Amino acid sequence: MADTRVVRMLLVGVGNLGRRLCRLLAAKSPHLEADYGLRLVLVGAADSGGIAYAPGGLDPGALADIKDRGGSVRDLPGVGGEGTALELVRRAEADLLCEATPVNLSAGAEPGLSVIREALSRGMHVVTPNKGPIVLAYRELTELARKRGVELRFDGTVAGGLPALYLGARDLRGGTIHGLEAVPNLVTGYILDLLAEGLSWEEALARAREEGALEADPSFDLDGWDAAAKLVILANHVLGCAAGLGDVEREGIRGVDPGEVRRVRERGGLLRLVARAERRGEGYRLTVRPEEIPPGHPLATLGTKGMGIVYYTDIYGVIAATIREDDPTPSAATMLRDIIDIYCGRGAPAP
Amino acid sequence: MADTRVVRMLLVGVGNLGRRLCRLLAAKSPHLEADYGLRLVLVGAADSGGIAYAPGGLDPGALADIKDRGGSVRDLPGVGGEGTALELVRRAEADLLCEATPVNLSAGAEPGLSVIREALSRGMHVVTPNKGPIVLAYRELTELARKRGVELRFDGTVAGGLPALYLGARDLRGGTIHGLEAVPNLVTGYILDLLAEGLSWEEALARAREEGALEADPSFDLDGWDAAAKLVILANHVLGCAAGLGDVEREGIRGVDPGEVRRVRERGGLLRLVARAERRGEGYRLTVRPEEIPPGHPLATLGTKGMGIVYYTDIYGVIAATIREDDPTPSAATMLRDIIDIYCGRGAPAP
Repeated sequence: MADTRVVRMLLVGVGNLGRRLCRLLAAKSPHLEADYGLRLVLVGAADSGGIAYAPGGLDPGALADIKDRGGSVRDLPGVGGEGTALELVRRAEADLLCEATPVNLSAGAEPGLSVIREALSRGMHVVTPNKGPIVLAYRELTELARKRGVELRFDGTVAGGLPALYLGARDLRGGTIHGLEAVPNLVTGYILDLLAEGLSWEEALARAREEGALEADPSFDLDGWDAAAKLVILANHVLGCAAGLGDVEREGIRGVDPGEVRRVRERGGLLRLVARAERRGEGYRLTVRPEEIPPGHPLATLGTKGMGIVYYTDIYGVIAATIREDDPTPSAATMLRDIIDIYCGRGAPAP
Repeated sequence: MADTRVVRMLLVGVGNLGRRLCRLLAAKSPHLEADYGLRLVLVGAADSGGIAYAPGGLDPGALADIKDRGGSVRDLPGVGGEGTALELVRRAEADLLCEATPVNLSAGAEPGLSVIREALSRGMHVVTPNKGPIVLAYRELTELARKRGVELRFDGTVAGGLPALYLGARDLRGGTIHGLEAVPNLVTGYILDLLAEGLSWEEALARAREEGALEADPSFDLDGWDAAAKLVILANHVLGCAAGLGDVEREGIRGVDPGEVRRVRERGGLLRLVARAERRGEGYRLTVRPEEIPPGHPLATLGTKGMGIVYYTDIYGVIAATIREDDPTPSAATMLRDIIDIYCGRGAPAP
């Protein structure tokens, strides 16, 4: 690999995924430089407590350590201080923004949306696993990126570390997608599996909460908002239809009868919250609801840590992909995948 | 989509896959031009009977019709005549070669290898589902393409229409692949399923032959040569290790006991010819052999028409992909996928 390309990165949001990205940057630097000629330099970071900026580079491992201890970006010795993410993105000299703030499907998808808009406007590439801005402003943001000649990537929004968007938007080109089915949410699968094992709804929810799988507001997962958001992104990006959350017929898992979950398992099947798009004339019908996945179905082997997607096509057959994700590292690694794809483009690996 | 890009194509080999590519070109032209700004013009074709060349374009549908009736490229009215594929590629003005001659793992992988070499040398992109040249000359051909600044794509070589190479070489970048398992061959799965249904070896082979699934020389499939060739391509292109056929520990399915196939099925599993790479120090151990795929394994739902691959990685979890391919159209469509990827590059779909 000949020349090394320096990429000056900003990271906004240093929570579950942002912290893991810092660990990946720390661990993978030599590999990225040797194999792809990429030197990823984290020049700035922001969380809800403050910002840090250092043109020569922050130490991503030290930042992750501080966050692990409950601290803030502000506490980074010598470089941390007061400020907001938006101020950082407005002032910093950088090539690329990783936006990893918590998902917010209402209130204008802030703080992510403003930060992404600002970065694109300033000519930075943007990589984000944050569904909110993409769901609420897909057309605006992709158009803005196109006008500024930069890339907006969000592979991590749909099914954790599974390249569901790349597969659909890139590998099926030339074909027509008749429909798709996705199991894009882990928490609901976990809860349904607990019900199948004989737990009551109360016990299953308590267990999920204990293990940190369930958010303080469980509605996001249980009522299918998360799955619907992912379906909206698939619809816009892969199926090319301008859908919003309101276009999804949505039914969560709260009404599911534990006895029925057990009977499905006894039949050899699997109950999952399924996001589905079915061709209807020129458009697609979009649904999210609990569905029985029968034995033999390409997603029937999904375990508790599994997510997946099936594409039904005219000329590429039926193509399915699944991921088993034992912790959120693959979801964070999608940012790395996106960055490498932006700078290295084509599919050929390093020699 | 603004400007239309004209791509002058040559097709060498108009058999099972080449003919289907002609049908796809005929059917998909308006779609390709509208969505991707690509006008694919077939300016030349060659089969074992002769060649045809017309700078203004041949009619791919008419060519497929002639081949369906048992004719040759030579019979194309007004433009067909005597000549060899190599002569065509030497003289034609074209941007891209689709090489789809029959697989030949010995005798220098001819006629494909010479034709591909010539096309790359003349500055044409090359797209091929033909394993032979890639297995025997991966380094030479990829290096030649690099030097000439053209693309060599062979997505169709590994598991029919499944983008197994794209997935491995592009979507796992930044990660380390600990190992992979593939079920890349359809015929052996079909025969093993016939044995599971109670047929004897003789009956199963006769059935496969009747249905045209088995070649005149069945060794290619039954002795694992086809699976080994695919594993060699995966090893070179995805795992980055310079392996050849001789590096694969290969055991075909001929020694399989039908009783054992039935017992595997009774246990809820699946017997398949599995191509496997396992990390050993800096390299990989490569094996092809019949293996039991247990229930719950990501490939356990493969049906008779199914192929698949699993990648075990450090940061992207366990990622699997499968395809159900009811006829060879998806295998032929890989050439379309490759062409679109060459000219449209990035993953974003047309608006």
